[in-house]
Order: sequence, then structure tokens, then C-alpha cells
Amino acid sequence: MADKKLVAEITSRDEDFTQWYTDVCIKAELIAYSYIKGFMVIKPAGYAIWEAIQQHLDARFKATGVQNVYMPMLIPESLLRKEGELVNGFAPEVAWVTEGGSEKLTERLCVRPTSETLFSDFYKDDVHSYRDLPKLYNQWCSVVRWEKETRPFLRSREFLWQEGHTIHATKEEAEDRTQMMLDVYADFLAEDMAIPTIKGRKTDKEKFAGAEATYTIEALMHDGRALQSGTSHFFGQKFAEAYDITFTDKDNKLKYVWQTSWGMTTRVIGAMIMVHGDNSGLVIPPKIAPVQVMVIPIQQRKEGVLEKARELKEMLREFRVQIDETDKSPGFKFAEQEMRGIPLRVEIGPRDIENGVCMIARRDTGEKIQCAISELTQTVRELLPRIQTEMYERAKAHLEEHTYTAATTEEFEKTFAEKTGFVRAMWCGDRACEEKIKELYGVTSRCIPYEQEKVGETCICCGKPATKMVYWGKAY
Amino acid sequence: MADKKLVAEITSRDEDFTQWYTDVCIKAELIAYSYIKGFMVIKPAGYAIWEAIQQHLDARFKATGVQNVYMPMLIPESLLRKEGELVNGFAPEVAWVTEGGSEKLTERLCVRPTSETLFSDFYKDDVHSYRDLPKLYNQWCSVVRWEKETRPFLRSREFLWQEGHTIHATKEEAEDRTQMMLDVYADFLAEDMAIPTIKGRKTDKEKFAGAEATYTIEALMHDGRALQSGTSHFFGQKFAEAYDITFTDKDNKLKYVWQTSWGMTTRVIGAMIMVHGDNSGLVIPPKIAPVQVMVIPIQQRKEGVLEKARELKEMLREFRVQIDETDKSPGFKFAEQEMRGIPLRVEIGPRDIENGVCMIARRDTGEKIQCAISELTQTVRELLPRIQTEMYERAKAHLEEHTYTAATTEEFEKTFAEKTGFVRAMWCGDRACEEKIKELYGVTSRCIPYEQEKVGETCICCGKPATKMVYWGKAY
Repeated sequence: MADKKLVAEITSRDEDFTQWYTDVCIKAELIAYSYIKGFMVIKPAGYAIWEAIQQHLDARFKATGVQNVYMPMLIPESLLRKEGELVNGFAPEVAWVTEGGSEKLTERLCVRPTSETLFSDFYKDDVHSYRDLPKLYNQWCSVVRWEKETRPFLRSREFLWQEGHTIHATKEEAEDRTQMMLDVYADFLAEDMAIPTIKGRKTDKEKFAGAEATYTIEALMHDGRALQSGTSHFFGQKFAEAYDITFTDKDNKLKYVWQTSWGMTTRVIGAMIMVHGDNSGLVIPPKIAPVQVMVIPIQQRKEGVLEKARELKEMLREFRVQIDETDKSPGFKFAEQEMRGIPLRVEIGPRDIENGVCMIARRDTGEKIQCAISELTQTVRELLPRIQTEMYERAKAHLEEHTYTAATTEEFEKTFAEKTGFVRAMWCGDRACEEKIKELYGVTSRCIPYEQEKVGETCICCGKPATKMVYWGKAY
Repeated sequence: MADKKLVAEITSRDEDFTQWYTDVCIKAELIAYSYIKGFMVIKPAGYAIWEAIQQHLDARFKATGVQNVYMPMLIPESLLRKEGELVNGFAPEVAWVTEGGSEKLTERLCVRPTSETLFSDFYKDDVHSYRDLPKLYNQWCSVVRWEKETRPFLRSREFLWQEGHTIHATKEEAEDRTQMMLDVYADFLAEDMAIPTIKGRKTDKEKFAGAEATYTIEALMHDGRALQSGTSHFFGQKFAEAYDITFTDKDNKLKYVWQTSWGMTTRVIGAMIMVHGDNSGLVIPPKIAPVQVMVIPIQQRKEGVLEKARELKEMLREFRVQIDETDKSPGFKFAEQEMRGIPLRVEIGPRDIENGVCMIARRDTGEKIQCAISELTQTVRELLPRIQTEMYERAKAHLEEHTYTAATTEEFEKTFAEKTGFVRAMWCGDRACEEKIKELYGVTSRCIPYEQEKVGETCICCGKPATKMVYWGKAY
């Protein structure tokens, strides 16, 4: 139905997934490339999705007591260097400001790649007593990491994100918070973005520089590759010791605080594209969609059509609804609405008006439903949550279908030779095996999942006894 | 009533306004100083105000068709240099990134001080036909300007703001948009922030680097000094020519677009503090207040008090309401609520419960009202808008009382020697006179107001015939 010739074509998803992804980013007008490599312009259609994500996520944070703040975007080198592991992890990929106001600075300032150091420096003066704890702060901002390879949303030199940084009086409380925020991320992705994930812990090799433990949610893209979609870190007292963040506890003793941080980025827009998108473009889950329903008049120059279409739009005002009144052809409008991933299209033409009906088209399945105009609102009310649920179920089925189990080295090798997806296999816990597996098969440990299952007896790399089941995969 | 000894004292507003301002910023926990001069931490109480400002302003923008986007934070030097006036205006105060990812960059990148150049570079490829126009884009972000003197919110090296950048097919449309956004700012300040302003045009000396015309809204602080609170610029086709932003018009001719930009910053938080604040701290207008009502139980350990206080909080759930259940004394809680500028306090103690009443205290006037519990919700419903209106009216009366008129040089000199405020006086239009006035009296032209009045015949500086009435004042 959609007039493909009129809307610029996108590469087939099955022919060239990478090119398909880039095409969708550009043709759905989510981004434009900028003058500097790895820095992108997020266009209105892309930014509206980010605004929806922010709204949902921010409400979930605030419901757990989190407060928003804003920290400086520049970090003095000496402050960054106080915690050795973090600086070693990030130093190779930061941007340095060396001149300000026509003068050479006495100390280099880096554009924040993440703000543990700033929060720690702030907390050290802000916290004195156990009564001041916990502090549950978050900020929405942009960060810069000088990546070599860049791709829209997935890996860029500047990206938008939120970073939560909390400090606590006890280890237990900090550990609970680390898990709580991982759950917030997983629930948000499942319920709002219709993206199922695997929750687990990162191996030491893959964990965040400076963290005692990193927890992750891993999603599976349509092409079978994994995407780390949100992380939550437990720092223990490392930063507290490096930055001297102490408090007087109930027992009147001076103690170091316990710390966490957690972040989610514009990368989840990439996840949404690669989990739900198809050969007609974006498919946005209804809860996140900036526009949920597009009303398209057919033969709009005929008397009464435009008026009726506007009436339908007015009927649907409880949803995020728009009407396409431009003078483009209906086929062109359909293709645009599909490219933009708008969950529902309502078509109304002269014949429909005569019969008191309209046509509803689902973006996710292509299904077309004739609907009495008198029942339109109720139908949309039922369809949107159903689409949301079914999108999640399809993504979950895809994840499950592309999750394999390997008990032996041979099975492991064979599976990755023939399939793309997650492979569940045993690991001895040795970093050397992890590195060898990466070298041999080009796959990394995605996480040690919470839901463990003994799928074999020995490490699929070295053959020694193993107790940990790991999700392995090719990752973005 | 408030227990001043328990809450850290602030300097008296009338003794030392500058110190009072800083004290309020710190003691009301709006900000903390950071490691780098001029970079501040915006704490939860401060950021919540900014979130409220964003919400109100963003809704007003979107109601006029504006869409949000995000542009890179770094600008290559060559891109910045394309428009001469802008770079001359900003070059002395930018921060330069010269190293990225351990390597020296081949071209310096400046941290955006404003984004005309980036929007122009983007628009040149994004716009082809008159059908693509207008583009009404805005972004919320942080910018860096390497100021020498810094003060929280008023002048800092990094600040948060929004910057709108629009392009149009015709001059008239761009001029209309410039005025429309100035009106949006003025209405927002008047209706949401309860701050009256004077609308006018900046002189050439005071206008934005690169603009053909800059329009401003000027507010008057409690100490009689002016604060430029929002600006809207008309660029004509300057940037279009420098960055080659062309489109094919209806007549099939290639033309340059017409451009505007407009911005409002965290500075308006400074305006709010200095217009409404008093010797007990902040006074936040109800529409912006993150917390509108604070319920404070008196003798909360007595049976039934805490329960009743929670009941009142529940009754008031249509407002942004909190309850202070901490074990601090009521006097301390009052002082904290006053310092934080929460518009209404509801006190409830054992005696009140017996009588079925509670006590309401207005933050702005200090007025205390006994109120039947059964009428509490209705009373708050009436009080909040009344406070909003009266705060505006008081600020307007203050502005009018501190606006003077000078017909002669002598009057002008005498007024500024004796008073602080706006002085309305005639000006010949000559930049030299403006500079001389600044030198002689330490005051600047704030704006050439839309509402003109011939308050004299000759320029108060040179004595030549003058047709323009200007608002003069000492500014932040």
C-alpha cells in the first residue's frame, strides 16, 4: 500500500543489517551527521523519542527517592587522577580543554566522560552525619568519550545519558540500591520500550573501571547481536577512600560511605530501532511513541473528507494524535507514517464516511481493521496496549529462539559458526579463558546471569571444572 | 516564630545585598561551589526550580510549534570563524579542546558558547525548498563562556539554558518570530515567575554579536539593579550568507533564509531570588515552587498528631505537598520551610485537632490564617493563585516606584547619585554618548522600550535633539 518510490528506499534488513540501521536513522530523520566525526545532530523525531524515554525513566527514578542535580561538565586533571583505576580506564578516551578565555590553563580540564569524580568531590563536603545519608542524586547531561569507531546512538564521541550516583551508610543499602536500579532499567525496557533483557553481573574483565561489581541488562538485537543496555555499579568504598567521603555514624565513629552509580544512554534508541524496526522503517512502542496515531484523509479534496478527518483527530485527543493534511499522496503519507514508526494509522475517505467507518492499520503487524467511527476511540484504547504487549512478546520470543546452550567446546564453536545469538555455556572464572574465547570466536562474555543453570560440568575453554554459566555473544 | 538560631543565619538584605544573595544561594541549598572557578554544582533544591522553569517554558515553546533537538557541544574553529562578528564577540571567552583520545587535534574545537554556527551548518544541508520552512528548533543544554568575574546563576563559566534557532522564508515571518519569543519570555516571567519586565530593543552597542537587532526583557531586582532576563535576536540573512543556507522559493528562485535566535538561562533563578527573596530566604512563586505546601506537625509525639498531619497532606494531594516528620523542633522546621521559599505552611498541633482547625502561614507576607480543617483544601486552592498574583503586583509596584524620569543632564546625574533603579531619559542615538554615560555614571542603556514617551527634547549626554527614550540603569 505504501508508496515506496516516493519515500527514499532503505536497504533490506536481511541483506545488510548495518546499512539498514544507518538508513533508518537517516531516513526516519532521527539524526544527521555533524562537522566532527562521532558527533551527531539529534533531529526532532529522534529527540522526541529521547524526551519520552527521559520522562518515563525520570518518573521511575523519582518514585525511588532520587533527586536531580547538575554537576560541572569539566573535570580538572588532578581531581580525575585521584582514583587510579577510573583514570586508567578513561584517560585514553577523553577530550582535554587546555585553553580558556584566550589563555593557556595551568591545569588541563577534561570534558566529563562520566562524573564519579565530581560527585565524590562534592559529597565529601556535603555529608557529615549518618543523618545526611543516603544521597540519591542523578543528572541528565551529555558526556564525551573519544571513541575510534562511531555509529549513531550505539557509539558516538558525545552522547546523552543520565548518571545516578548514590552514597549510603551501609554496604547492604548500597548493594540494594545497585540491584534496585538494575531492576528499574529492566522494568523500563520491558514495560515501556517492549525490550526483554537478561540481567546479570559483568565479569571482572568487562566491568566498569573502578567498580567492585558491575551489573548489566543485555538485550538481543534482530540480527542476533547483543547490546549492553544499562549498567549499575557497586563501588564499595573505593571512591570514598580516594576522595575522603566520610560521615559520623550512629555509633559516633567516622566511616567511609558506600557508593553506587548507574547509567542509561541514547543507546537505548539504537536498541529500539534494532529490536523492533523492519523493512519499512522504525516501529516505536506505543508508550514511547511521540505520535501514537496518525490520521490520514483519503481523497482529501472531496467535500467533507478533511472535516471528517479532523473530527476523528478530535475524537482521539486522549492519545498523542496528529493529522497529515499535506498535499502528498495517501501512499506517500502511509510510507512516511510507517518510516516514522507511528503505531497506528487511521485512514478515512469518502466511501468510509458514507458507511460510517474508517480503516485502522497497525504499524507492527501491518494488520488492517475496519472500524465503525462510533467505536474508534474504544478500539484505539484497546489496540495501543495490545500492540505494546505483543511487541514485547515477539521480542521475547526472538530472544528465546536465538538463545542457545553449549555443553562442550565443540558445541560452542559449532553454534557460533552457524548462528548468531546468545550462547549459554560454562566458564571456570579465569580471565585468560575469557580472552581466549574472544580471540578464537570473536565473542565476549555478556553477563553471568542471575538465573543460573548448570548446562555442563567444565569450562568450554580450558576444560577445568566450572560453576558459572555465562551468556556469550557478539556485541555492539 | 522561626527558630533563627537553629538555621544558619543569612546576612540582612538591606545591609549587604550581595552577601545576602550568596547566603541565600548556599543556605537554601540551591548550589555549591565546585573545584573550578565559575563552575557550580546545582543541588536538588536549585535543580528542581530549573526543572519547573523548563516545564513551563518548554510547553510555551511547543504551543508555538517549536521542536526540540540536540546539537554537538563542540564547534570546530573553522566553522566558528565563518561569521566574523560572532567569533569576534565570543573568541575571547571560549574554552578550547585541543587534545582528544591522547592525541593532539589537528583543529581546535571550542566548547559551545552559543550554537548559531552549528544550527547554521546543519540547516544548510537540511533545507532545500520553501516547503521545508520554517524550521523552529530549540535545544536545552549547557554552554561555556570563560567569564572573569563569576556569581552563582548570574554569571558563571558554565550555565544551563535553552537556545532557539529558527529560519524562515521571509523577513516578516522572522521578525514576527523574534517578537513572538520575546513575548513568550515576558509572559512566562510575568505569569509563572511573577516578575514584571520592560520590553525593548538593545542599542547597537549592547546587542548580540552578529545580530541585526536584539530585543530584551529587563527586570528590576530588589536592590534597584537591572537584570537582562531573556533576549531574542533577529539576524536578517547574515548567517545565511556566511553559511550558505539557501532554499528554492515559490517563484523558483534561490534565496537566503531569514534567521532568529532566542535564549533564557538559569540566570532567571537569580532574578527570582533577587526580586522575591527576603531576610528569611527564598520566596518562590507558587506556579514554580517544587513544593507548594509544607505540613508541619506541632508536638508530633503526642497521640494522633502525626496521623492528623498525614491526613492533611493526603487531603492536599492535588498540590505539590510535603510533610516534615523529622525530629527537629517546629521552630527549626518553620525556618527551613521559610529559607526554602515554600509558599504555604500548614501547622497542626493537639490543640488545633481538638478545635478541628489548622494554621496556615503565607511565606510571602508572613500572614497567618486559622482555617477549619474541612475548608483547608478550598482555602489552599484560593491562596496559591492569590499569592502568585500578589507577588507579581508587589514586584510591579517596586519596579514602578524605582523607575525615574530625567529630562535634563542634571536630573539624570542627581537621580543616579541618590537612587538605584531605572532612569528613563532621552538619547540621541550616538554610541559615543552611551559610552560617556557609562564612564560618567557607571550605568548602561538597558533598552529602548517599546512604549516610548518623549520625556525631554534633547540627549541627556550631548544636548543634541533626541527622539529615543531609553531605560538606563546599573546592571548585573
